Amino acid sequence: MPQQFTLFHSLLDRDVMSAKNIFYAQSGGVTAVINTTACGLIETAAQYPQYFDKIYAGNNGILGALHEELIDLSQEDPQQLAALKHTPGGAFGSCRYKLKCLTNNRAEYQRLVDVFAAHNIGYFFYNGGGDSQDTAHKVSQISAELGYPLTCIGIPKTVDNDLPFTDHCPGFGSVAKYVAISTREAGLDIASMCKTSTKIFILEVMGRHAGWIAAAAGLAQENPSDPPHLIIFPEVDFDANIFLQQVQHTVETQGYCVIVVSEGARDASGKFLSEGANRDAFGHVQLGGVAPYLAQLIQQKHGYKYHWAVADYLQRAARHIASATDVEQAYAVGKAAIEFAVAGYNAVMPIVIRESDHPYRWHIDQVPLAEVANQERVMPKEFISANGFHITDAARRYLAPLIQGEDYPPYHQGLPVVARLKKICVAKKLPAFEKK
Amino acid sequence: MPQQFTLFHSLLDRDVMSAKNIFYAQSGGVTAVINTTACGLIETAAQYPQYFDKIYAGNNGILGALHEELIDLSQEDPQQLAALKHTPGGAFGSCRYKLKCLTNNRAEYQRLVDVFAAHNIGYFFYNGGGDSQDTAHKVSQISAELGYPLTCIGIPKTVDNDLPFTDHCPGFGSVAKYVAISTREAGLDIASMCKTSTKIFILEVMGRHAGWIAAAAGLAQENPSDPPHLIIFPEVDFDANIFLQQVQHTVETQGYCVIVVSEGARDASGKFLSEGANRDAFGHVQLGGVAPYLAQLIQQKHGYKYHWAVADYLQRAARHIASATDVEQAYAVGKAAIEFAVAGYNAVMPIVIRESDHPYRWHIDQVPLAEVANQERVMPKEFISANGFHITDAARRYLAPLIQGEDYPPYHQGLPVVARLKKICVAKKLPAFEKK
Repeated sequence: MPQQFTLFHSLLDRDVMSAKNIFYAQSGGVTAVINTTACGLIETAAQYPQYFDKIYAGNNGILGALHEELIDLSQEDPQQLAALKHTPGGAFGSCRYKLKCLTNNRAEYQRLVDVFAAHNIGYFFYNGGGDSQDTAHKVSQISAELGYPLTCIGIPKTVDNDLPFTDHCPGFGSVAKYVAISTREAGLDIASMCKTSTKIFILEVMGRHAGWIAAAAGLAQENPSDPPHLIIFPEVDFDANIFLQQVQHTVETQGYCVIVVSEGARDASGKFLSEGANRDAFGHVQLGGVAPYLAQLIQQKHGYKYHWAVADYLQRAARHIASATDVEQAYAVGKAAIEFAVAGYNAVMPIVIRESDHPYRWHIDQVPLAEVANQERVMPKEFISANGFHITDAARRYLAPLIQGEDYPPYHQGLPVVARLKKICVAKKLPAFEKK
Repeated sequence: MPQQFTLFHSLLDRDVMSAKNIFYAQSGGVTAVINTTACGLIETAAQYPQYFDKIYAGNNGILGALHEELIDLSQEDPQQLAALKHTPGGAFGSCRYKLKCLTNNRAEYQRLVDVFAAHNIGYFFYNGGGDSQDTAHKVSQISAELGYPLTCIGIPKTVDNDLPFTDHCPGFGSVAKYVAISTREAGLDIASMCKTSTKIFILEVMGRHAGWIAAAAGLAQENPSDPPHLIIFPEVDFDANIFLQQVQHTVETQGYCVIVVSEGARDASGKFLSEGANRDAFGHVQLGGVAPYLAQLIQQKHGYKYHWAVADYLQRAARHIASATDVEQAYAVGKAAIEFAVAGYNAVMPIVIRESDHPYRWHIDQVPLAEVANQERVMPKEFISANGFHITDAARRYLAPLIQGEDYPPYHQGLPVVARLKKICVAKKLPAFEKK
């Protein structure tokens, strides 16, 4: 009887290959396309039932594992899971929670392995930035040490574009596109107002330690007189006098001045131009407000009327104008994560390799997590122009391909359609985790 | 000979109808679609050569007339003029310059008429807000008084949506759409971060005296638990204690709180929550910074981690996600302005009349400038919910049609294509204008 035989064969396959469950978690600041990566992972995993049984997503990232809050994606409407591709934010909840080092807090790592074991989890996919890649690496170490068979794959994601090895990080291209477009658009606005009114427009963008996002604004400039006129990078020590001279020169020659400033802009002593009162869970200072600071500086010196904008979350959530290139690559790293796991890789991170700038060609490769962990990539010096206030042609060649194409989400009633998930967690099997 | 006859007939037509030149000027704060209106006017005028000869656009608005800086649109590449339809900002330059009252500053009005006469201008189209409609009205009065034949048509434009008679102002629908989309997107971002990090997100939007733009953010809310959770309107006296209670309640029930605040938010004494140091040429206080003010207030009371964004020019320049309805109507008022002039109307403003909410139907009508001038439309009380922090169903019915449809601009190299104008002015015929 063929049907029985098929069933037997399928069971045998499952047994031989020992299909295991997946644990997927989102970590750190989210992006316009981290859910696209989740979608790539989910849709690709479905093609390998002999390897993967259920997919559990961590409710609020790695905390979902620690607290055994595992969202069972088999309970979700497949249409809503497909909608993840065009939904910004982190659909399962992210977190800013850094696991301590192995020697000082072994209990947390042990707990992760206990939860994984209790739920037959054989695959851990951790979608985040540098800190998360470090965690994924440590989890792979301890699971090996404990003899628990676990495939750990880190998946890159940061708007800050600060992960090493990969040509760039999924998430960056879309914020880059948003910032470049916004700079061009707002630049046209102030150009029309400057004769009798506003002469200064300052846009503050993200980028704590590196000026990648601010640099992307430079793409808005086609002709030398186009905005942005000045870009303030964290990589260049801010000198108020030189800056104010540049502003004056620009207003006198162009009639107005558009400035894009990185939130991480700092002076020669290393002090941020504007520091908020908060620190996040990783101990990073929470920034914001350098735009109004610069506006005041200019007003006091030159008396120019100003406007300023702080894009904040708007820039990294702007799925409505995501880069099609970024969307494609965000999906590709999720897909590749599954394929690397199937191919037997462990403790690696998919990376984007650039083959050529023009025509733009790329493919996905992988790098060991041991090499990625806690490294931060800075922007090359040759990307910043000699005067320190703009980008070079080398930067343009690097940045331009990343913002190509528009991947528009579907709309309903004038607003983008987003995934609506039920987020049903599986029944807990372990006692609650008591953090020491 | 048919050809000769046609030529003769055409000359006769021109002579009989005495084709005159057009003066078109943009005024006040620009929008994502004021150039769409210009495009509608230019393309429609071309259909009536027997009425209209050349089109001159004021270089920097009405100042272009006072200083005899008349941009000759016949010198522009027709492709670039067509690109105005999808170019934000004011392509010919706008200005914040209010003509004084007729009795105190007759010289300025006289100068306008002198320049119009010197350049055979028979039609004055003034594209702006309330102050501009007032000016258009006064110009029509003085030209009549002086016996100079001039057709004056005001064309509505404000993101603030504060002009009377028209159902809404072209320009408002696009900023409304941008703000609603941004609120939904950023809301998804903070929802994913709130477990361990940011619990408060505040988006500051424009709206000096009326909460129309802030109200539009309310459209992002589909379910009662969706962002935005609280909207701060200028129409509702801000009470810090009630506000802080609402914030706490929202965080305790939803895990986070998204607040949209109008720049014009004020307390019971009428004082703006945050006032900038500047005043513009109309004497209006320049606002900005109420978002960080509220963030501090919340932090001091509750200690919640916050993020805030100030959209500023980004919101009114966001042509990349313009409302298709707004684009269509912005074009329609430019077209109608020409058609009203052809039909012999004078001193009127085209307005949008709503025929029904659902299905949304509208048409263009007109209203005398005498009735428009210096009136400001406020948001109806019944648009604000009983607790003062959200919009009602009535507001939704009004707002929803205005954000329908996406009118995407063309892109090149990942960035929106915008009009590039030469802005060549005609030779001056008069001595320079000395302002008294």
